[in-house]
Amino acid sequence: MATAFYPPLRTLLGPGPSDVNPRILAAIGRPTIGHLDPEFILLMDEIKLLLQYAFKTSNPLTLPISAPGSAGMEAAFVNLLERGDKVIVCQNGVFGGRMKENVERCGATAVVVSDEWGTATNLNKVEDALKQHPDASVLAFVHAETSTGVRSDARALAALATQYGCMSVVDAVTSLGGIELDTDGWGLDVVYSGSQKCLSCVPGLSPITFSPKAVERIRQRRTKVQSWFLDMNLIMDYWGAGSRRSYHHTAPVNTLYALHEALLILQEEGLEESWRRHVYHHEALVLGLESMGLRLIVAPHSRLPQLNAVCVPGGIEEAAVRAALLKNYSLEIGAGLGSLAGKVWRIGLMGFACQQRNVMICLSALEETLLSLGADIHPGKASQAAAQYYRS
Amino acid sequence: MATAFYPPLRTLLGPGPSDVNPRILAAIGRPTIGHLDPEFILLMDEIKLLLQYAFKTSNPLTLPISAPGSAGMEAAFVNLLERGDKVIVCQNGVFGGRMKENVERCGATAVVVSDEWGTATNLNKVEDALKQHPDASVLAFVHAETSTGVRSDARALAALATQYGCMSVVDAVTSLGGIELDTDGWGLDVVYSGSQKCLSCVPGLSPITFSPKAVERIRQRRTKVQSWFLDMNLIMDYWGAGSRRSYHHTAPVNTLYALHEALLILQEEGLEESWRRHVYHHEALVLGLESMGLRLIVAPHSRLPQLNAVCVPGGIEEAAVRAALLKNYSLEIGAGLGSLAGKVWRIGLMGFACQQRNVMICLSALEETLLSLGADIHPGKASQAAAQYYRS
Repeated sequence: MATAFYPPLRTLLGPGPSDVNPRILAAIGRPTIGHLDPEFILLMDEIKLLLQYAFKTSNPLTLPISAPGSAGMEAAFVNLLERGDKVIVCQNGVFGGRMKENVERCGATAVVVSDEWGTATNLNKVEDALKQHPDASVLAFVHAETSTGVRSDARALAALATQYGCMSVVDAVTSLGGIELDTDGWGLDVVYSGSQKCLSCVPGLSPITFSPKAVERIRQRRTKVQSWFLDMNLIMDYWGAGSRRSYHHTAPVNTLYALHEALLILQEEGLEESWRRHVYHHEALVLGLESMGLRLIVAPHSRLPQLNAVCVPGGIEEAAVRAALLKNYSLEIGAGLGSLAGKVWRIGLMGFACQQRNVMICLSALEETLLSLGADIHPGKASQAAAQYYRS
Repeated sequence: MATAFYPPLRTLLGPGPSDVNPRILAAIGRPTIGHLDPEFILLMDEIKLLLQYAFKTSNPLTLPISAPGSAGMEAAFVNLLERGDKVIVCQNGVFGGRMKENVERCGATAVVVSDEWGTATNLNKVEDALKQHPDASVLAFVHAETSTGVRSDARALAALATQYGCMSVVDAVTSLGGIELDTDGWGLDVVYSGSQKCLSCVPGLSPITFSPKAVERIRQRRTKVQSWFLDMNLIMDYWGAGSRRSYHHTAPVNTLYALHEALLILQEEGLEESWRRHVYHHEALVLGLESMGLRLIVAPHSRLPQLNAVCVPGGIEEAAVRAALLKNYSLEIGAGLGSLAGKVWRIGLMGFACQQRNVMICLSALEETLLSLGADIHPGKASQAAAQYYRS
């Protein structure tokens, strides 16, 4: 017979979910109200404004999809694409591959521009593809590749899209709130994210924003969006302005309480300050890891501060390290995905989890664990280096 | 500047979300853990078992979709159907219409069997359609039509489906936990529900179950499922048996804590006892409403105990009544949808909300409000009738 579930207390330094601020956990447990309640409508309006702040946009169509980030990705493609369309997809990790899958399942053609995992999307290759495929209507890329810890140059990619008459679809699942993202300033058309990364909210929602040009395209479609649940023509009327809302689906009321609180916390800190904090603690972590003798796979100029892919030292089984960290420190870090499985760990410093305490805990726990498994690292250096960084 | 959101305390007697048990609100606010944490995998296994109990099935593929009920509906159709398939869709309210939309967006043909809103699906008409369309492969119907409060005969409809070589797709959004539903006993193939109705959980999840025959069909598809997010071939591997789970999407961890607790509560009470409780309080409510002089639109043999569609008396503006109930009693009841908009209220007695206290509050609040608006009803009878019912 099953009994009540009391989760262990973890420190979540994986690729997400990240540690959730207790303020957000308090918010999610508040009493449920109806999804058409006048008070809930006001909450929806506030969430839209707070998301516009986080995305740096004035796009009226800015809202959370009632499902995880992968549904946000799907919402971007099923709404923009019709059968026979062509999309340039930049792939340098798992999520570019998922974009390709989504494009093809819409009956569209994906032209893939591949870069090695762990490197940024190459702008020259993208420009070549745009030249070779003047009939492409969309350029899709991942701003922050969660599978490798790489940042691609979203601003430059969006400029190329505009130059060649394409709309941009941007995966900002791991970037929103963690690194600079300027939807309007960079002229991005569709940008989606996830609640459980640098917003430090619980998983389950996908904030998304559509430029007026993207909205126009959705309104002018010749065919219906293949997903009823993700059809923005219908969702617009539910999340639309004014008091007359038409019922589409039942919004995840309590999870939206949580998102609202997470966005409030971001606004209180300030978006730019949050970006700075991510860089600040990332530098301490990297200093510690390198002092220990560990190596990051991503070159410094392409590194995401919020997600650090660290090479597994020779002779060490990566899963044993993660298991020991979980058992002895209740500390979660992430495994490698795809071609990086077994070769890297992914250490996230996202949102609320991105703080000095966690950097220090992670470094000492990792050092002790690696030493106990016989790894060839420099003992006694990592914590010292980080502590000195924080003191200076 | 936005500030923290403290929802008003409502009594939720609409069509869902229903009042959430405080045990569930406590569960959802527990600390988030990773979606691949070994402890979370155990929780997923328990949820599957508890859902099998609620659905009365031994189907291994029984799990919650990480999105609301409308995504559960879409998951049923996008997985079973391929372009060119034909589906008989029974429509006697809003949700049958939504089924038709979903079928067509899969590139399949929907043959609609229409019945008047407020009546059950007519078995003879369905049999005629099955005879006329021997090439149909699926029969889709709504067990409990949330827009009208009608129960259709799911057992008989499923038997017809089997007789004519069709698979059944059953919308049990409002029925699961509230009225008899016997997935295996009735031979249902795909059944989906919602978390926020008779399970009294927060909105945002859609429990679903697939028969082995349905799974076989999904595995044998000639084409890919058009939705990546809802592709059961991929989700099976994430929710699958054994310790090797492949990452698909990030599960909504905290909402799953809530669903687990909701299902525990159902198991503690007992499924059959929960069905009995819904009938018991429904009878008190109906007695009160009829003593007041109000009329239900659904004939007694087709009524859902958990959702009561009540005719708006002549000369009364229905929205004014709901607004007054919300303002003066913090009590939510539902409006009519579609062709019943303005003509009925929908009073839900679902899950945790289905209790004597709420029946008594609803009757007295409705009576006072209707009298204050000058409705021609019998004063002083409703509460008395219900109180007497409960005493006897």
